[in-house]
Amino acid sequence: MQFLGSHVLSVDQFERCDIEHVFGVADSMVPYASRAKVTRVLEGAILGNMFFEPSTRTRVSFGCAFNLLGGNVRETTGFQSSAIAKGESLYDTARVLSGYSDVICMRHPEPGSVAEFAEASRVPVINGGDGANEHPSQALLDLYTIRKELEDKGRSLDSLRIAMIGDLKHGRTVHSLCRMLALFKGVQVVLVSPDELAMPEKYVEHLRQAGHRVTISSDLSDGIRDVDIVYSTRIQEERFSSKAEADMYRGRFRLNQAIYTQYCEPNTVIMHPLPRDSRADANELDNDLNQNPNLAIFRQADNGVLVRMALFALILGVENDVEKHAKPVGWYHRRSLL
Amino acid sequence: MQFLGSHVLSVDQFERCDIEHVFGVADSMVPYASRAKVTRVLEGAILGNMFFEPSTRTRVSFGCAFNLLGGNVRETTGFQSSAIAKGESLYDTARVLSGYSDVICMRHPEPGSVAEFAEASRVPVINGGDGANEHPSQALLDLYTIRKELEDKGRSLDSLRIAMIGDLKHGRTVHSLCRMLALFKGVQVVLVSPDELAMPEKYVEHLRQAGHRVTISSDLSDGIRDVDIVYSTRIQEERFSSKAEADMYRGRFRLNQAIYTQYCEPNTVIMHPLPRDSRADANELDNDLNQNPNLAIFRQADNGVLVRMALFALILGVENDVEKHAKPVGWYHRRSLL
Amino acid sequence: MQFLGSHVLSVDQFERCDIEHVFGVADSMVPYASRAKVTRVLEGAILGNMFFEPSTRTRVSFGCAFNLLGGNVRETTGFQSSAIAKGESLYDTARVLSGYSDVICMRHPEPGSVAEFAEASRVPVINGGDGANEHPSQALLDLYTIRKELEDKGRSLDSLRIAMIGDLKHGRTVHSLCRMLALFKGVQVVLVSPDELAMPEKYVEHLRQAGHRVTISSDLSDGIRDVDIVYSTRIQEERFSSKAEADMYRGRFRLNQAIYTQYCEPNTVIMHPLPRDSRADANELDNDLNQNPNLAIFRQADNGVLVRMALFALILGVENDVEKHAKPVGWYHRRSLL
Repeated sequence: MQFLGSHVLSVDQFERCDIEHVFGVADSMVPYASRAKVTRVLEGAILGNMFFEPSTRTRVSFGCAFNLLGGNVRETTGFQSSAIAKGESLYDTARVLSGYSDVICMRHPEPGSVAEFAEASRVPVINGGDGANEHPSQALLDLYTIRKELEDKGRSLDSLRIAMIGDLKHGRTVHSLCRMLALFKGVQVVLVSPDELAMPEKYVEHLRQAGHRVTISSDLSDGIRDVDIVYSTRIQEERFSSKAEADMYRGRFRLNQAIYTQYCEPNTVIMHPLPRDSRADANELDNDLNQNPNLAIFRQADNGVLVRMALFALILGVENDVEKHAKPVGWYHRRSLL
Repeated sequence: MQFLGSHVLSVDQFERCDIEHVFGVADSMVPYASRAKVTRVLEGAILGNMFFEPSTRTRVSFGCAFNLLGGNVRETTGFQSSAIAKGESLYDTARVLSGYSDVICMRHPEPGSVAEFAEASRVPVINGGDGANEHPSQALLDLYTIRKELEDKGRSLDSLRIAMIGDLKHGRTVHSLCRMLALFKGVQVVLVSPDELAMPEKYVEHLRQAGHRVTISSDLSDGIRDVDIVYSTRIQEERFSSKAEADMYRGRFRLNQAIYTQYCEPNTVIMHPLPRDSRADANELDNDLNQNPNLAIFRQADNGVLVRMALFALILGVENDVEKHAKPVGWYHRRSLL
Repeated sequence: MQFLGSHVLSVDQFERCDIEHVFGVADSMVPYASRAKVTRVLEGAILGNMFFEPSTRTRVSFGCAFNLLGGNVRETTGFQSSAIAKGESLYDTARVLSGYSDVICMRHPEPGSVAEFAEASRVPVINGGDGANEHPSQALLDLYTIRKELEDKGRSLDSLRIAMIGDLKHGRTVHSLCRMLALFKGVQVVLVSPDELAMPEKYVEHLRQAGHRVTISSDLSDGIRDVDIVYSTRIQEERFSSKAEADMYRGRFRLNQAIYTQYCEPNTVIMHPLPRDSRADANELDNDLNQNPNLAIFRQADNGVLVRMALFALILGVENDVEKHAKPVGWYHRRSLL
């Protein structure tokens, strides 16, 4: 794909070489994200960070990424302050807001709304999540994290072995991950969920047509053996018709340190899209995994900033100018303190 | 008027020469708004963007304008996080918040509140809208847009022919426009509204005393002939006692491409203060005008950034220093991408 | 204490020499806060300004302080956009958000929550208020203001004479002030409140063990004689079981210009943590004191920016580099305009 001036709306836009290009640029952002260097490459540029649905981490992550490239951020959160309530069309909103920004990141509860907005926008738009539909930067940061964690162990995305756990029917992140993994070679995927929350057939087919081996299981202990990555997901309570129905599935797919030690290979990496439900009756990752060095969930969040910096740099065409507008910072590096 | 250190509270502060001064400075902001150049003239300065009433476009437009001059923006939206709920006076709020900022932009639902706030403030305050009362930067950007659109056709504000359409009784923007047009010469104004929503007599008088020709009509097709500008406004539903009453007036003053082609001169420019109600039963500008090159409503919004940059530069006294603190940006210009 | 990389959670962290160090650095921030100079010492750094409870002045004050050092601010206000609602632990929130920032300022309604958050954070955390518990930057700015106001009169914190007035039982600010005053010498404290709202015994003891003279009174006119500082506090209505009970105490401890003239020494300084309740039935400082040059309540708020700049500079270790990354601003100084 051509990045310069393009919208980023769906993982389907990305070929394998595009993904590798993004990841290479993301790697080059490390000194800026850790504040070993400071760049002004986007000085004077403005990100319109338009969140028509609540979100802290994605919103702040995009905002930070833009700040770290030297740009400014103007923000909107929620519908309350929006002209949409007065009958304004997405077309009008997009025409106006895109006049204020160099690039827009938008989250909206309605599937397809971000693409409709992008159609009318005069600047590139990044989809920050449109309901159950797409959230491409999350998919990219997941894949980037897998690559990075494997690299540390001398492996690569080709020949990856991964287990996806939990609610695979409704999970936007695991759907996107399947579509992107189809671009690589020799991947083995184990899908572990209750039957009622199984991965939709089209994603399974997509993986199989790519020549990947897909195993379907409803047994956690069996599924997490012999894999490089365990990708756990949240029971999306709001997608069930009742709390009682959601509760039925809680607790059956919970991973903790004891289960990890008993069943997983020593270096199996644990991932999760976050937020993780940490209440006692949740069915996700137990807090007793917090000291496990293979728990990669916070490195995942950190990587999100790198991937988003890369996307901004690429679609604004400054990926080769970051260094030129940089200076070292001698006296203080982020996160070197604690 | 003296701009340096002044509040901007009302259109009545502006003489004709002041308006022309603002417009000249606004013209000089184009390279910075389009990011052909970047300036640091307001580096280290802080805008307190205090919106005690929801607004996306005005709030973001002011914030962008300040960022584009190199300054920072601190923001408040809504009442929820305000000490006013604990019985704090506007005087105290103003004394405190003005200690945090170099300039404040304030929106507040109560007419007169921004002037009261400005009285106590230690830094200049720009009225970003105080209920039905004033919104001077909107009036300036409307007039700036008219001037610019006319200029492209070799005409000027003197001898302007304009039709104002819709709810002329409650529309803050058309009231302000009348007051400013009185400063120019030989203007012809056609006021098109239902009788019940007619322009208040005092504004009509004001125009006539300036020697302008004012025609009052309740017929859309007749009103929009022989004018340079059609300025359409929204039925402000919240100003009617019931939805039923508001609905009575919907649809009677709706402009669409067919009506435009049949009645308007070929180059008639269409304006609107936005947001435009795009629902099927609205009485404003039809979406089928979106491809009409004379639809200037989004250029209006763009011009808002230029006018607000000019106001900030003038009241902070940096209008002649913008260029001195500027550098060209070789590699990427805003809005040149799509 | 060692400032570099430390959390600022409680006034108990500070020895006398630490306080004096903060105040010295705060003094050096004056040219930057007044924009006589601009510094880029924190260029590329990000403050995570996380307010899980509404606040305008504290939030904006922290944000401004960071901007004035050249840094960027990413913000969250309220719970609505928080993953905490989905069952996320403070531990997870802290791990993720601290990956986006160089330093975090956090306000949260739950006492102890900020310390719990700091435990998991990977960057330094400043407590911006955790319920009734702590708000150390407020305590520091109060003490800084007292020092500055006394200095102008040739006096010092040692041998200070201060009256604290109002609801001394629930007031977080007066509790913190007592703890910090215990670090100084020869202080005389008069505590004026209704019996039911008296200063808790432990704070009184703390002052007495430091060798200070503490007088307890329920008579306003008697309490405010012979002191350098009158520190008035708000009746925290929300802490009473009913409005009726709160109203009982309103009006009994109200200071106005007539009472000031009759009872106070000529140069007695009036302070208040703000917001001040300015309604007619409030029991705080009357608006007729607004022209009194000894009313220091807005200078207090201004000082908050200096103290917060000092805290940021110290915990990020840049207190000696501010000047090195500075440039003078010849043409415009904040607050020199009005």
